[in-house]
Amino acid sequence: MAKTETRAIRAAWLLTRMPDFKPVLFVIGVLLCGLAASMALPATADALQANPDWQVFVFSALPTGFVGMLLALAYRGRGGFTLNLRQGFLLTTLSWSILTAFAALPFAHLGDRLSYTDAFFEAISGLTTTGSTVLVGLDRLPPGILLWRSILQWLGGMGIIAMAILLLPFLRVGGMQLFRAESSDRSDKVVSRPWDLAAYIGLVYLGLTAACAAAYRLAGMSGFDAVNHAMTTVSTGGYSTHDASFGFFTNSAVQWIGIVFMLSGSVPFVAYIRTLRGREPVLWRDGQVRTMLGIVLVAVAALLAVLWIGDGKPFFDSLSLALFNVVSIVTTTGYAAADYQLWGPLSVGVFFLLTFVGGCTGSTAGGIKVFRFQVLWIVGQSQLRHLLQPHRMAPMSYGGRVLPDDIAPSVLAFLFAFIGGFVALSLGLTAFGLDLVTSLSGAASALANVGPGLGAIIGPAGTYATLPDGAKWLLAAGMLLGRLELFTILVLFQRAFWRW
Amino acid sequence: MAKTETRAIRAAWLLTRMPDFKPVLFVIGVLLCGLAASMALPATADALQANPDWQVFVFSALPTGFVGMLLALAYRGRGGFTLNLRQGFLLTTLSWSILTAFAALPFAHLGDRLSYTDAFFEAISGLTTTGSTVLVGLDRLPPGILLWRSILQWLGGMGIIAMAILLLPFLRVGGMQLFRAESSDRSDKVVSRPWDLAAYIGLVYLGLTAACAAAYRLAGMSGFDAVNHAMTTVSTGGYSTHDASFGFFTNSAVQWIGIVFMLSGSVPFVAYIRTLRGREPVLWRDGQVRTMLGIVLVAVAALLAVLWIGDGKPFFDSLSLALFNVVSIVTTTGYAAADYQLWGPLSVGVFFLLTFVGGCTGSTAGGIKVFRFQVLWIVGQSQLRHLLQPHRMAPMSYGGRVLPDDIAPSVLAFLFAFIGGFVALSLGLTAFGLDLVTSLSGAASALANVGPGLGAIIGPAGTYATLPDGAKWLLAAGMLLGRLELFTILVLFQRAFWRW
Repeated sequence: MAKTETRAIRAAWLLTRMPDFKPVLFVIGVLLCGLAASMALPATADALQANPDWQVFVFSALPTGFVGMLLALAYRGRGGFTLNLRQGFLLTTLSWSILTAFAALPFAHLGDRLSYTDAFFEAISGLTTTGSTVLVGLDRLPPGILLWRSILQWLGGMGIIAMAILLLPFLRVGGMQLFRAESSDRSDKVVSRPWDLAAYIGLVYLGLTAACAAAYRLAGMSGFDAVNHAMTTVSTGGYSTHDASFGFFTNSAVQWIGIVFMLSGSVPFVAYIRTLRGREPVLWRDGQVRTMLGIVLVAVAALLAVLWIGDGKPFFDSLSLALFNVVSIVTTTGYAAADYQLWGPLSVGVFFLLTFVGGCTGSTAGGIKVFRFQVLWIVGQSQLRHLLQPHRMAPMSYGGRVLPDDIAPSVLAFLFAFIGGFVALSLGLTAFGLDLVTSLSGAASALANVGPGLGAIIGPAGTYATLPDGAKWLLAAGMLLGRLELFTILVLFQRAFWRW
Repeated sequence: MAKTETRAIRAAWLLTRMPDFKPVLFVIGVLLCGLAASMALPATADALQANPDWQVFVFSALPTGFVGMLLALAYRGRGGFTLNLRQGFLLTTLSWSILTAFAALPFAHLGDRLSYTDAFFEAISGLTTTGSTVLVGLDRLPPGILLWRSILQWLGGMGIIAMAILLLPFLRVGGMQLFRAESSDRSDKVVSRPWDLAAYIGLVYLGLTAACAAAYRLAGMSGFDAVNHAMTTVSTGGYSTHDASFGFFTNSAVQWIGIVFMLSGSVPFVAYIRTLRGREPVLWRDGQVRTMLGIVLVAVAALLAVLWIGDGKPFFDSLSLALFNVVSIVTTTGYAAADYQLWGPLSVGVFFLLTFVGGCTGSTAGGIKVFRFQVLWIVGQSQLRHLLQPHRMAPMSYGGRVLPDDIAPSVLAFLFAFIGGFVALSLGLTAFGLDLVTSLSGAASALANVGPGLGAIIGPAGTYATLPDGAKWLLAAGMLLGRLELFTILVLFQRAFWRW
């Protein structure tokens, strides 16, 4: 009797010390309403073609909107609201998971084609802008569902930029506090208020997408293809409306437009705003952008050696093919314009390693990200100097500023978590019977939100459709972990998190 | 005219600022004399069997001893000598490279069998205790050359322990300054003088080898096999006298002896001395040892699931097979008792990842080493706590002591160099046309000084003999880089190193 009572008291006491879910659930409610509203677009696309599949979106929008309204109304605060640190972490993980669960509904309602596992996989691969697909026969699918995949990536890309600029630097995840000064340091402020910053980012994102769509259309894509590919290019997502992905377009102008806009989606969006407002450093002076372009150039040079010198392909064809595929992987887009696995072992090695790199932080790109490699390089150099002069510790500088002391351990911890996640995911995939190359490249591709892996199954010419369900759930977890910079999720598994 | 003069003055000035090679060359001379003397053993082994190959060792010992004597006599100092920091780095890199060049002579003189590339590969694989071999038909080779391979590994193992305990902690390489207190902190001193410590370590090493040889002999090995395998077991080297490696011995007692003595060679040797002198912590209380055993147990459990539950092999056979192969890779020995690639994808994944782990620091084992994973874990945990409480930075502790501030960046820099080396080596191997699995596993195996890789060519049932020469030199460079903890070599490429 006494024991039960003590337990009940303890449970009640713990409940009072739980994080306050209210503002978190309110925001998720609002986001769900937005998701439901965006389902009108694919429904319209289907209805215009008199395709009965428009009903799929209505039946998905109804529960999504209902739950969203319920949450938003039940938990709306009086006046403004602020989120504290714990609520920031909760919101990040919960919003991506819950939105994915509802975003999967149109796929799940798509006749007998997809199980909920497949639907969830397709939705999370979309929202995290990974671009791995379980759908085959894209060219024969109704326009609504193709548009829905593109919309998910576009919305996901927007969400990532907002998160990376407005939220993660304050949550101090994986060294991203380095970019906090961008918007908090008074003298260095880009714009005066965070909502202004969000509005600017949204405008740049929309502008880039519109420009990309126009360019694709002018280069000969159909209007529908141009809009879809623009949304998945600028978001570095990589979903296509064709099974052959970019291999469908024989026009090399389309490839070059893709190269430009994939890169445009993987540079720090704050740099656009600085550039637009006429403040230094302009885009091409940004250290991250330069390093990313340097990595691209080195990889392209290696592949040119293979294609042009080795295989005797014409120079211009070799260049555009190498550049498109390298940019597609480095920016974590994941379009395929050719099966680069046929280019020989060096090319396979290059693409495997590029999978880990990723674009710049503060963009739609995934992966380990360029600034972390820069921090590693700076720390490595400093350690080398330190070996010769043990009693002098030169201060490390990044982008002209002194690197704060807490960045190195923060990046170290991120790398450890990334490698740990990569190891666990790879082993998990081998346990489902997948071979080593498929497992390693699949794990890397999911964690870095790239898309294609290597090998016959999930390579650039393959699909994730035939993988066992367990492997799909593992990969889905990997995509979410990678997208949320790992620690945002890992922090929830700390006991201290739940003691308010 | 003036330009040439300026250049000459500048060259002369730079020369005066070069490191002082004298004490370094003196030590190398002494080591070369020792190497020449040790060639008497295999010569005797051949001569006893009236095998004319004994001449190979005489012709190798003569130049080795001559150069050694010359250096030792020319550069002997008056009275004692001390090495400064730069000389410590120089000695480390130069001694391993120069000794390898001479240790390769017996292989190069072995008739038409081996090119100098192959001879150098075999010698460096021996001295670094890697154990990758380019020799096939071991069972038919003269006893002298087999003994020479074992002696190289045994001497290399001794050199590594001495270096890891007496030199590297003072060179502050990759976080190893953490173990400096072991011999410098007055209250915590193991023995009073470094030479005493070296003598103790030598005795323990010799004792372990003798015990291992006796155990192997009692378990049924021939006397020759017992001595050779004892030398390559305790040094975690992995050379065998049979092409089938440990698969040659059907006796499971031999396998269990191997398991015990491979582990005995990969625990911190300082812990032996502490244990022998009755000081805490005893061997099995050492944090590194416990973590290493934990890693072994988890890997064995996974493989037991495959072999015993999955394939229905008898429990005891599954256990000894899994344990032997896991211990062989984790301790970076590299004996093969079975082609574990036939056990399915999970097993391949497990062995690939184990290749990176390595044993404890201060032992003969290679790899990233357990203490670095412990530091990573501690930093990761601390970062997770830091995310929730940004204004409180809890001090990190390792083995009951506060982790010094310079350890995290030092380990981070080591990891960066290791990953960088792994990437460069893998790409280099793919450029020679090797497939992805061979390249990745070969690079990892060389850098971690393990031995076997994965795939049909360099897997546990394969050999490095058929690789192109360029790939062999790359792998040789990888073995040396890994063995010398990377930074010992990288520091030489700094311009500041050469400005005295």
